Amino acid sequence: MVRCDPGMVDEFMALAPSSFVMKARNPSKSVHIGGNHVNFGPVGGPSFVTDLDRGRRAGTFDEMCDFLRVLQSLDIIHLGGAGSFEPLDLPADTRHLDRSYAAATLHDKVWSANLLGGYRARDGLEMMCIVHGIAYEELPDHVVTMGNINTNSPRQLDGNMSAGLTELALAGQPVVVTPFTLLGAMAPTTIAGALTQQNAEALFGMMLCQIIRPGTPVVYGGFTSNVDMKSGAPAFGTPEYVKATQAGAQLARRYNVPFRASSTNASNVVDAQAAYESEMSLWAAVMGHTNLIFHAGGWLEGGLTASFEKLIIDAEMLQMMAEYMVPLTVNDDTLAVDAIAEVDPGGHFFGASHTLERYDTAFYEPIVSDWRNFETWEEDGALTATQRANGVWKQLLAEYEQPPLDEGIREALEEYVTRRKAEITAGPDLLDYDM
Amino acid sequence: MVRCDPGMVDEFMALAPSSFVMKARNPSKSVHIGGNHVNFGPVGGPSFVTDLDRGRRAGTFDEMCDFLRVLQSLDIIHLGGAGSFEPLDLPADTRHLDRSYAAATLHDKVWSANLLGGYRARDGLEMMCIVHGIAYEELPDHVVTMGNINTNSPRQLDGNMSAGLTELALAGQPVVVTPFTLLGAMAPTTIAGALTQQNAEALFGMMLCQIIRPGTPVVYGGFTSNVDMKSGAPAFGTPEYVKATQAGAQLARRYNVPFRASSTNASNVVDAQAAYESEMSLWAAVMGHTNLIFHAGGWLEGGLTASFEKLIIDAEMLQMMAEYMVPLTVNDDTLAVDAIAEVDPGGHFFGASHTLERYDTAFYEPIVSDWRNFETWEEDGALTATQRANGVWKQLLAEYEQPPLDEGIREALEEYVTRRKAEITAGPDLLDYDM
Repeated sequence: MVRCDPGMVDEFMALAPSSFVMKARNPSKSVHIGGNHVNFGPVGGPSFVTDLDRGRRAGTFDEMCDFLRVLQSLDIIHLGGAGSFEPLDLPADTRHLDRSYAAATLHDKVWSANLLGGYRARDGLEMMCIVHGIAYEELPDHVVTMGNINTNSPRQLDGNMSAGLTELALAGQPVVVTPFTLLGAMAPTTIAGALTQQNAEALFGMMLCQIIRPGTPVVYGGFTSNVDMKSGAPAFGTPEYVKATQAGAQLARRYNVPFRASSTNASNVVDAQAAYESEMSLWAAVMGHTNLIFHAGGWLEGGLTASFEKLIIDAEMLQMMAEYMVPLTVNDDTLAVDAIAEVDPGGHFFGASHTLERYDTAFYEPIVSDWRNFETWEEDGALTATQRANGVWKQLLAEYEQPPLDEGIREALEEYVTRRKAEITAGPDLLDYDM
Repeated sequence: MVRCDPGMVDEFMALAPSSFVMKARNPSKSVHIGGNHVNFGPVGGPSFVTDLDRGRRAGTFDEMCDFLRVLQSLDIIHLGGAGSFEPLDLPADTRHLDRSYAAATLHDKVWSANLLGGYRARDGLEMMCIVHGIAYEELPDHVVTMGNINTNSPRQLDGNMSAGLTELALAGQPVVVTPFTLLGAMAPTTIAGALTQQNAEALFGMMLCQIIRPGTPVVYGGFTSNVDMKSGAPAFGTPEYVKATQAGAQLARRYNVPFRASSTNASNVVDAQAAYESEMSLWAAVMGHTNLIFHAGGWLEGGLTASFEKLIIDAEMLQMMAEYMVPLTVNDDTLAVDAIAEVDPGGHFFGASHTLERYDTAFYEPIVSDWRNFETWEEDGALTATQRANGVWKQLLAEYEQPPLDEGIREALEEYVTRRKAEITAGPDLLDYDM
């Protein structure tokens, strides 16, 4: 049990930067984290994957790569991730290498190191160095990755997570500290109580990073929701979740660090519930000025499953939100007083010059929403949004183009993976603080 | 073509009240309109009705009454309405009488007069007088109903709508003036342009009410969205819709009158699209401080169809929003520092006294969301939210209890309907300004 002096919080939190830039190998895909920036990341963590054709099943490496390919095609997902679900067909102690290799080669966005123990974190960092052409010792001068650690709430930081946090902080890479505080289960039943605990746990993790290496970029993570008190099952996108997310963002601003939340739902299928719970999460996060919104692409079933169709529907919801964030332009031209005068009362604007000059780019164009009339929609198969999403991800996958990567870098990555697999299989070289 | 002097707007709009109370026959269901109050109303206007069992079909009176019964059972829908879709099996010139009778007897919430022509509006008002036990001349002292008029955009107020507006204003009853301004169709392609036109049309209608009877309660209605520029089909819940709604609410506050918006979608089926477009509309309206949110229960297919399942899913979304609006309680008790100290690190709060004291009322309890794990959900039939909603409305209908109504009032309403049907069938007694 570690207890901190009251003055420690302000002292150490003052060392953390209020914002930072994480570099992608494609510089146009680097992300600003902090201030008024919002970044969306894909689901991470599930052991299962699902789609309409094959149903729910254990994740495999091939399908994980397909998921990465679809993510590469969706510009609205700013973080590429290192595989949105576990490739359970690969050995547990080396699959982080395959995941990192896939992330480094199949997309050109930022991705996060696996923090389940120090050796995995260090492997991720080594491979980042290869991608960015820098030495390990130079890492603190280059923010090239990020890691998320969950506390084992209440009030516990386990060995694996501590090891990952330590490795990242030593290398000066950003650490997102996210307490897993479900009201009534791992935290008190009241929102204020759960936030009290969340705050203590998040602060402890972020302070630990500053103790290890002053100035380490940290992000305050909020993942406070409630459970169904009848079954104990976690619930997401609930009214309690919305309040906790927005209050969490206010707490992060209190300490002048970026905030991370999520777009989540507890539905078992990509239906209306999946959509309305995700929208509740998403609006909570965006209205709360969240900087990093994790799990915003493909999360289903309380995070136990990654869904290809949900990924597409999420991309639509995210794109709509991004378009909403674009400020309204108000000037003589957009006020259109002349155009209004041009059209007679009771007439229409379809042929007005003001319309013709703008019609092809005037509005947000959806990727899955169907606005056709009932008869046309019915004749075309009466597909639901989820069924249409099935067609969209297959098309994106078919049209996928691998982003160019220097062949020398690719070979070096491959060599690293091969060498480390052999070493780990011979006997893992656990770091001192690994469990 | 009517042109107003620049000074007229401020002069006449200053006469309109900033808020008012509309009385329901059950006083506990009267509604405050204005200020920081939000009220939800059901879908109105469709000719079609749909449910999972019978599919999409023309509306009938019996089913319209069932819809009213389900609405009576949903406390979150504050306005009861006078039938959410057209009972096409009844004659067009007298069905407003059947609808008013159904509204007056099947629920005890507020409802709106039909404004398609002065004689219909007057019939609605006469029946309101019977329900509330007042004489027609006393109406201006009792706000007991409300009517919505749509302009025939651009810049046209048609005869039927003008007649209805006039009849309501003469009786001192609230008029909601809602321009129907779809970007690129009935309004310019730019949001600023469409709002310019919306503002002129809304102001003209509200000023007309003040000219007819100074002090008539009016509501500024916003219904600005975009169309699909490829097909001309209207779109709802789009990013453009969100911006137009929130800017519209700001304009209404500029004139110090309540604002009306809607919760809408363009989906042809109760799926993820129906949910995410509705959530976009709903968040737009609520974050914009809208006072009246019409069409918030049961709207589908761009307003052409009323859906029983959508009504239930909407009720869930509205209840979640209402629960979100309840401010967080922060005090020593909810901060739960003692409860946090009581549970060991890594332990759980299921058995903590702080939890046990609160667990049965701690969280919002859903009516259609299913939070059970995948296996349990699958064993129980793997139902989507829409399929579960089908069971919910049937149960509400089976358990429906008609709210008590004085038998003398009921008989007087019946007599009025019988007499007027005979009169109208013999030859409608159109008012002077009816078309």
